Formats: sequence, C-alpha cells, structure tokens
Amino acid sequence: MAKGCLIVCDGNNGAGKSSVIRAIEEFLTARNHPVVITREPGGTRIGEKIREVVLDPETPELCDTTELLLFAAARAQHLKEKIIPAIAAGKVVVCDRFTPATVAFQHYGRGIALDLVRSINGFALEGFAPDLNIILDVDPEIGMKRVASRGQGLDRMERQKLEFLSRARDGFLRQAEEAPDTFVVIDASEPFDVVSGNVLAVVANLLTEKGIG
Amino acid sequence: MAKGCLIVCDGNNGAGKSSVIRAIEEFLTARNHPVVITREPGGTRIGEKIREVVLDPETPELCDTTELLLFAAARAQHLKEKIIPAIAAGKVVVCDRFTPATVAFQHYGRGIALDLVRSINGFALEGFAPDLNIILDVDPEIGMKRVASRGQGLDRMERQKLEFLSRARDGFLRQAEEAPDTFVVIDASEPFDVVSGNVLAVVANLLTEKGIG
Ligand SMILES: Nc1ncnc2c1ncn2[C@@H]1O[C@H](COP(=O)(O)OP(=O)(O)O)[C@@H](O)[C@H]1O
Ligand SMILES: Nc1ncnc2c1ncn2[C@@H]1O[C@H](COP(=O)(O)OP(=O)(O)O)[C@@H](O)[C@H]1O
Ligand SMILES: [Mg+2]
Ligand SMILES: [Mg+2]
Repeated sequence: MAKGCLIVCDGNNGAGKSSVIRAIEEFLTARNHPVVITREPGGTRIGEKIREVVLDPETPELCDTTELLLFAAARAQHLKEKIIPAIAAGKVVVCDRFTPATVAFQHYGRGIALDLVRSINGFALEGFAPDLNIILDVDPEIGMKRVASRGQGLDRMERQKLEFLSRARDGFLRQAEEAPDTFVVIDASEPFDVVSGNVLAVVANLLTEKGIG
Repeated sequence: MAKGCLIVCDGNNGAGKSSVIRAIEEFLTARNHPVVITREPGGTRIGEKIREVVLDPETPELCDTTELLLFAAARAQHLKEKIIPAIAAGKVVVCDRFTPATVAFQHYGRGIALDLVRSINGFALEGFAPDLNIILDVDPEIGMKRVASRGQGLDRMERQKLEFLSRARDGFLRQAEEAPDTFVVIDASEPFDVVSGNVLAVVANLLTEKGIG
C-alpha cells in the first residue's frame, strides 16, 4: 500500500499558504497521489466549531490561555479523526497551519512560556509530528498588504499588530533553525511562480525520500 | 472591604447540585452576602459557546483529549473573566462543577493519566484553587433516576453508562480523601431538606473561618 505523510504549510498571513497549498494539490493530483487538503484550527466538524469560537473577531475578551487550549483541542480532534486515518490509508495530507503557528503565535507572539506551549501541544499530539513543515517567510507588512488586497474581513488572529507579527515571524524562523530535518524555509517575498516552484521541489524531494514518489 | 471566596458544588448528575446551589444563594442573599452563581463548562460568553460544543449529544466522535482541553479552555476563561474579578470584589462565588468533575470524569471515568489531567487543569488555573469543594455523593443509579424524572433531554456527559458513573463517584470520593482541608462530602441520598441543611452548615462554617460571615 502507498505510504502516507503529513506536510504542513505555515507562516504569517498573506505569506501565500492557501495559494501554495492549491499548487501542491494540483501537483500531487496530476501525479495520481491521493491527497487530503485540510486546515487548522478546523479540519473536522468539531474543529470547525472550535474555529468559530477562537477566530471570532467579536470576542476580544478571549484570554491567551483559553486561546492556546482551544487550538490544542481542535488539533487533538483533527489528528485522531482525520489526519492519522488519512495517513494510515496512504494519503498525502497537506495542512494549512499546525504546531509551528502555535509556537510562533502563542509563545513568541503572546509570551506564554515555551515549555507550556510545547507541553499542551504534546498532550494534543501524543508523540505525533509532521513529516515536513514548510515555512513561507515574508515581511509581515507585505503579508498584511496582500491579505488586505484579498478584500475579505479579518478574523481575530489576523487583526494582530505588526510588532506581534514580527515576533511571530522570528518564531517561525527560530523553529526552522532548531529542527532543520523537518523544517524548510521558503522566501515568500518572491513572485508566486518562484515560490510555488521552490515549494514543489521540496515536496517532490520529500516524496522521493519517503519512497512515496 | 468584604472578602470573597469560591465554593464549588460537584458530584454526579442528579446528586442535587443545582437544587443545593439555589439553597446556598437564598441563604447568602438573606444574610446580605453579595453572591455570584455560575457553572462549568460555561459561565462566560465564550465558555457557554465551548459548552455547546463539548456537551452536544450529536457529536459522538469528540475524542477524550479534545474533551479535556475544551473543559480546560472554558475554565481558564471563566476564571480570568468572571471568578477572580468577583472574588476580588468581595463576592462569594458558587460554581456548579469545577476541577473535581474533570478529575472524576476525565481521569477516573475516561482513563486519561492523572498527571496529565492535573497538568492541563494546572495550566488553566495558574495556581488558583477553590476555597471549598462540596461533593454531593449519591448512588449513580439514584442520581440517574432523579435526572430522568426532571424530564429534560440529556447532554453528552449525562449519557454515560452506570459503570462510568461509578468510577466517577469513586473519583470524587478519592479526591475528598486526599484533600480533606478543602473537600467536604455530603450524603446526598438523604431527603433534600437534610442535604441542604448539611450543606448550609458547611458554608456557614467556611464563612466564619474566612472571617466573611
Ligand atoms: N508570492 C506572492 N507574491 C504576490 N502575491 C502573492 C504571493 N503569494 C500569494 N499572493 C497573494 O497574496 C494574497 C494572500 O495569499 P494567500 O495564499 O491567501 O496567503 P495565506 O493563505 O498565507 O494568508 C492572495 O491574494 C494571493 O494571491
Ligand atoms: N436529596 C434529594 N432527594 C430527592 N430528590 C432530590 C434531591 N436533591 C435533588 N433532588 C431532585 O433530583 C433532581 C435532580 O436534582 P438537581 O439539583 O437538578 O441535580 P444536579 O444539578 O446535581 O444534576 C431534581 O428534580 C431535584 O428536585
Ligand atoms: Mg490562507
Ligand atoms: Mg444541575
């Protein structure tokens, strides 16, 4: 049977995650790889309900601890109900945001201690880890401009100040430095064709390594 | 200024928590104590939304880890937004369910390791603890009959089997044995007047001890 794996696409808003994930989906589908596209928070019925609570821009009172626990709750459900069964069925799962975002936003952004963020993540994951984390890196100011030009309303997490997003960006890069075996940083300030080309090369490489490609 | 405190009322469904809490409210109000009645999961706008997710009987797929994290998320919000400010304002807060239920249901009931349940609770509480936990103890079969005779629909947590409820009952009693300074067990199989009389005696005692009464 085909081998499955989890590829995470993460980084600040407007970095190009959704666009890149569509390119990965086309790339894999064209090569007849069974692929599942999903996102966090969300990905399941329960996860999408949690998403509504945690991203609701009308609840400014939501505290940092609650936020972290809600992201973790959605992740635990997502993993057990959708990601692990899909991998077991030989699918390539591509997820929009995952643990890198929690570390970047809740630790580097909000200031919750790193060991607490890691232990809550660890409880939700029970030893599981993505095969590859692709970090799309771009100046937060550029990211925010791209998001604004998308012309949709902003959710609670998207309404962060530049200073917060700069700390989160550093947090994404720091995680990649600390775990070079499972993180790849892609310069997302380049034109989209260049970015997606670089991402697809990394994906193709992973599949070969795993004996999937 | 008046001193505040947190009194928790816990135990299996049908033990008489809601009824006893109404009696405590009347008792305190008659003595001009400012009192806040609240419940878990819930107690805040965000907590009530989380309550809808975690108690929804239409989501049998909700996994144990997610459940624990959702209870903890609601608790963190409840504590910061409502309980701590009310205590600081000199109010007696009476809460329907709290950490004893999480230990009884998620550890003794579901089987999640005790240290994990405690560490997630600890993360949500940041060192905070109730002044008094009143455990209403009754045979789960009697509790279930009382709930059934209330004639309302059952939520996801209320649809547990007797065996689960027996383990939870043992878990409530065990917690009380391990922390006799902050737990009191009340025999809730007695007629309601006896139960509420015993509870009010314990409450009056606590207020005297704290110099509130
Ligand atoms: N490399 C890029 N250069 C210029 N614009 C981009 C690039 N990548 C994405 N965009 C555009 O920026 C906006 C945000 O991209 P999107 O993929 O939705 O980002 P994210 O999902 O990371 O928030 C979209 O309008 C998209 O077309
Ligand atoms: N000690 C008691 N003896 C008999 N019936 C009781 C007693 N305490 C409560 N009840 C009844 O049992 C039902 C459940 O009580 P309730 O206070 O709603 O319990 P809980 O909130 O713990 O689920 C109610 O109809 C209530 O009137
Ligand atoms: Mg996107
Ligand atoms: Mg009740």
